[in-house]
Amino acid sequence: MVIVMQADATRAEIENLISRLKEVGFGVHISQGTERTIIGALGGNREALAQQAVEALPGVERVVPVVHPYKLVSREFHPERTVVRVGDVVIGGEEVVAIAGPCAVENERQLLETAQAVKAAGARVLRGGAFKPRSSPYSFQGLGEEGLRLLALAREATGLPIVTEALDVRTLEQVATHADMIQIGARNMQNFELLREVGALRLPVLLKRGLSATIEEWLLAAEYIMHEGNEQVVLCERGIRSFETATRNTLDLAAVPMLHRLSHLPVIVDPSHATGRWRLVEPLSLAAVAAGADGLIIEVHPNPAEALSDGPQSLTPTRFATLLQKLAPLTAAMGRSVSHPSGVMPQ
Amino acid sequence: MVIVMQADATRAEIENLISRLKEVGFGVHISQGTERTIIGALGGNREALAQQAVEALPGVERVVPVVHPYKLVSREFHPERTVVRVGDVVIGGEEVVAIAGPCAVENERQLLETAQAVKAAGARVLRGGAFKPRSSPYSFQGLGEEGLRLLALAREATGLPIVTEALDVRTLEQVATHADMIQIGARNMQNFELLREVGALRLPVLLKRGLSATIEEWLLAAEYIMHEGNEQVVLCERGIRSFETATRNTLDLAAVPMLHRLSHLPVIVDPSHATGRWRLVEPLSLAAVAAGADGLIIEVHPNPAEALSDGPQSLTPTRFATLLQKLAPLTAAMGRSVSHPSGVMPQ
Amino acid sequence: MVIVMQADATRAEIENLISRLKEVGFGVHISQGTERTIIGALGGNREALAQQAVEALPGVERVVPVVHPYKLVSREFHPERTVVRVGDVVIGGEEVVAIAGPCAVENERQLLETAQAVKAAGARVLRGGAFKPRSSPYSFQGLGEEGLRLLALAREATGLPIVTEALDVRTLEQVATHADMIQIGARNMQNFELLREVGALRLPVLLKRGLSATIEEWLLAAEYIMHEGNEQVVLCERGIRSFETATRNTLDLAAVPMLHRLSHLPVIVDPSHATGRWRLVEPLSLAAVAAGADGLIIEVHPNPAEALSDGPQSLTPTRFATLLQKLAPLTAAMGRSVSHPSGVMPQ
Amino acid sequence: MVIVMQADATRAEIENLISRLKEVGFGVHISQGTERTIIGALGGNREALAQQAVEALPGVERVVPVVHPYKLVSREFHPERTVVRVGDVVIGGEEVVAIAGPCAVENERQLLETAQAVKAAGARVLRGGAFKPRSSPYSFQGLGEEGLRLLALAREATGLPIVTEALDVRTLEQVATHADMIQIGARNMQNFELLREVGALRLPVLLKRGLSATIEEWLLAAEYIMHEGNEQVVLCERGIRSFETATRNTLDLAAVPMLHRLSHLPVIVDPSHATGRWRLVEPLSLAAVAAGADGLIIEVHPNPAEALSDGPQSLTPTRFATLLQKLAPLTAAMGRSVSHPSGVMPQ
Repeated sequence: MVIVMQADATRAEIENLISRLKEVGFGVHISQGTERTIIGALGGNREALAQQAVEALPGVERVVPVVHPYKLVSREFHPERTVVRVGDVVIGGEEVVAIAGPCAVENERQLLETAQAVKAAGARVLRGGAFKPRSSPYSFQGLGEEGLRLLALAREATGLPIVTEALDVRTLEQVATHADMIQIGARNMQNFELLREVGALRLPVLLKRGLSATIEEWLLAAEYIMHEGNEQVVLCERGIRSFETATRNTLDLAAVPMLHRLSHLPVIVDPSHATGRWRLVEPLSLAAVAAGADGLIIEVHPNPAEALSDGPQSLTPTRFATLLQKLAPLTAAMGRSVSHPSGVMPQ
Repeated sequence: MVIVMQADATRAEIENLISRLKEVGFGVHISQGTERTIIGALGGNREALAQQAVEALPGVERVVPVVHPYKLVSREFHPERTVVRVGDVVIGGEEVVAIAGPCAVENERQLLETAQAVKAAGARVLRGGAFKPRSSPYSFQGLGEEGLRLLALAREATGLPIVTEALDVRTLEQVATHADMIQIGARNMQNFELLREVGALRLPVLLKRGLSATIEEWLLAAEYIMHEGNEQVVLCERGIRSFETATRNTLDLAAVPMLHRLSHLPVIVDPSHATGRWRLVEPLSLAAVAAGADGLIIEVHPNPAEALSDGPQSLTPTRFATLLQKLAPLTAAMGRSVSHPSGVMPQ
Repeated sequence: MVIVMQADATRAEIENLISRLKEVGFGVHISQGTERTIIGALGGNREALAQQAVEALPGVERVVPVVHPYKLVSREFHPERTVVRVGDVVIGGEEVVAIAGPCAVENERQLLETAQAVKAAGARVLRGGAFKPRSSPYSFQGLGEEGLRLLALAREATGLPIVTEALDVRTLEQVATHADMIQIGARNMQNFELLREVGALRLPVLLKRGLSATIEEWLLAAEYIMHEGNEQVVLCERGIRSFETATRNTLDLAAVPMLHRLSHLPVIVDPSHATGRWRLVEPLSLAAVAAGADGLIIEVHPNPAEALSDGPQSLTPTRFATLLQKLAPLTAAMGRSVSHPSGVMPQ
Repeated sequence: MVIVMQADATRAEIENLISRLKEVGFGVHISQGTERTIIGALGGNREALAQQAVEALPGVERVVPVVHPYKLVSREFHPERTVVRVGDVVIGGEEVVAIAGPCAVENERQLLETAQAVKAAGARVLRGGAFKPRSSPYSFQGLGEEGLRLLALAREATGLPIVTEALDVRTLEQVATHADMIQIGARNMQNFELLREVGALRLPVLLKRGLSATIEEWLLAAEYIMHEGNEQVVLCERGIRSFETATRNTLDLAAVPMLHRLSHLPVIVDPSHATGRWRLVEPLSLAAVAAGADGLIIEVHPNPAEALSDGPQSLTPTRFATLLQKLAPLTAAMGRSVSHPSGVMPQ
């Protein structure tokens, strides 16, 4: 770390800082300017003397970290890209993987109809919420275990592996029994107990970005999971909160190439939650893939106006198939591929 | 709700919407303008036909909710202010209540020394984290159950009731055994399982605002707790995330009078986390009380530079005592009071 | 507009409001619910009784506008897309137009070298700042009129039309004498005097989005220009301010398809200012085109480390040529085209 | 500045950087760690080699500035507080100064009535907009020069000095002829030409914070003014843009003590624009003063529901008088004073 001293820091304050740093093994380099003293501290025990402790020392103006606070997720020490397997589907390879399905599992007919339709259109993984985090206690909270059972049924019927959200450490085991991939939602990105628990599983994890999480905080959340031994983590950008209200959230597509530089983990994009409007899902899906996304997760409902949650952002199965058809030449132009329907879609 | 139709909505789309609304009991009022049709829908079953479902109907441009989505926390149906009791301390009454203590419980000496000092200075409740939510898995995570034991010891030694954070449904019972008030931290404001569980307890709850939570989402989180039967909820503004990086967060003091208008629950302010800098804690504590806050929660550490977390935002006990002395004439000017040391503080 | 009355609005307050609305010609529709009264007001004189005036009336809780506040820029009344001509270049047609050049004009050699290189690579318009808005009075402020002269020289040498920023009503005429297109920068998006003045010109305008401007405010800024009679406006998304600091700004690509729905004006994207990092310019350029952008404006400098402003976000001419080569198959996949170098670029 | 090199920076890249730094006079200190090299560069010519140029050099990961980019506004070199005089009113002294008046000057009667009422209530300066920046070209744009004439009339009638906004370099002279203090609005905070022009005047300036301006950018805007020789600058916090929509803007009261630490300039607060709701103006006025504000600027209108702009945030004269009465004991508690009506206000 680099420590910038206050302009009026005393000699004693500077010396006190230096001896504290040396105590825990830091190499100390002093730059004495006319206006200020700057101290470089490298190689010491950062757990023994954290940045925050240094910032609280008298005479210190601020501390600038030099190395990223994460290790396991960093590409610096792991240059080759990680590939995550969900059933027989590979995320992080040449193929752009489409994950699709309803926001919430509502009943057997809705789910099976959607599962078959998205499979026919080219989806490689089925999504569907059994446990739903809802802002209001009066909103539909998901079918719970019954929803998990229906998802397993849909997997049997279609062969698609399933991804579904775990909300809670207590129901995690239940979810893990049925799911092929565990989703950690945006609201739980810093539910550290849950992160530790999915880290102890041997199932791939889809880690959504928190609504106001910086890229660094997001990577630290992934670090929690990897730190427990689970290396099968996929990051999912789903929009952040800004002042703009024309869309539900603000999709931060710069995060995709930025994450690919900082980390070896695959990155996918959720244009449905990011925008909250189905008409924007197609252009932003194309944009996400052009930015380098390894996959997309898209809400599809056979009848959006009947959906128990998030209808306005759901595509119909036909629109979803059209989207994958439009993606095909674009992925080809990017040197990648996408599974898509071969015939012409009815409009 | 009010439904604004698209400019090119067809007669059939409008009629379809109206019949859907009437089916579930809404009274429907149609305003036919030259440019657009607007439909007022009042009094129907909002669970049967949610705003989102209406938004997904063809021809609908947008839906404007008319009533707030929360009920139990609302002042509309509960005009008198709620008073929350923590041990024998009353939050929401005439007294401005100071809650103080270290960010994290570190060891017996640190905690007891701080507890006695903040009590002497005028604090009415002791705070201290046993389970700490930390962005990085490599940061100090708290003493856990041992921390709870030390808090109980500090209560015995000082008589101060204690508030401490519950991170997880599994350790909640442990926390509830020792604590006089359960804190739900900003990162868990939408951990709905945890909200439901503290809702089922008969202990007062300190509900911090999420980093990017709107006031409405925050009140809905409180609604989750009240919906389970626990009416002893105190709201705590602790800064939101904005583009400004000069302070750790942006303290939204307008939330204090706004919440007092919308809700009957008491509101306190955490200037330590809001700013991340101890020098700003005093002026913002004064400002919070002037804005109408019912209390303050402030980090105090006997030696901020040795703190295992959040040192730069901690006051020393002496500075905390000085703060309460400065608060005293201000609370008097506001027609309220605050407990404070009577003597002159050493500088 | 739709007016939601307070729950405790009196009969007199409601009647007062209704008579005010009728006075200025509104058709009034009353929805009387059990909890609240809602009033629809359509077709009246909005200038005579603005939303804000209604909101200030006693008994009114809030007012919801029904129609967009802009007219001339709206696609509702002008469904066909506008095409803007800069010299012989068409923005808003089938071709994706690349605008490129240095952030600031520094000297003749730098500008001519860059102009020739970007022309060879496929750029259709040359950009370069003569008047530079700089946060600090101590930063390089641009060459001013000398910069304009050099831009004109570069146009002569290359045949590329030029776009450059006008900062001020007083130097606008000077800029207009030399430029083929006037840029209004993000900081001036709500400099209404300047908007009016460029509205009175007959030169095309590149209107950048303000750092914290909503899409609606941005379209209203364009409305100012069109209202004075200038219909040649191109909108430029260049990133907005959010809490994320990993990139200079947060590029809001959802704005591109959203603007295409709301407005008939062409939309281009500036990935250089949006990210502040040249390594992110290529992936976000591809993403912008995939989202439907009609063009790109990109900073190119022959030697970014010598640039007097914004070096870290500038591409070298070679990297710019590589970018256009990568764009070519993507635009083809989108049914569009882009001018690009035919040969292989040296790496 | 401190320069953090990339982990894989080559020896040649490091040496190139060092020689560039030495060329322009920097003292260079090298810290060689196991993971990275850090270079401290102090005392050189920052105009000759800006931070941005260094960031663009190969091998550089990032550059951390050490000293603030502003000088004249900084308290570091000017520890005593500046006092600004508007007529015979002193801003930045012991008295908390109330500035009040209508958002826009509408007509003689409205202005004189308001001026007399706010004077009677304790206002020391009259505010009123003659030139109004409005998001929409269809909104009332102010009376222009006629508004200035009426303001001068109101000054004559009441003896209150007047502050009014200058929108444009061309009308600045007109404004300066009539006004006692020039307001630079939030939208013009980075209109650098206008800043330079008011810097050349010898009239005090009220510089509002931009909607998304950091504290550093705001101080740099003040630096522009002081750099031209005008030292009479008052900073005005008026709310920033965040995701929260319950209030018009988010009032950042932490900016008040932060500015008092960083700068010697007086700081006032505008609770009317910050909240957009008159009911919040009183509690936030009290809070602003408790946070250390040197004054308040408040919208007052004799009949808010008739106001041509910003009615919902205007106080009536009676409510304004009540506010100053409530402020009186609070300012006394803070060791300051405020002018206020001595009698009891009619409710």
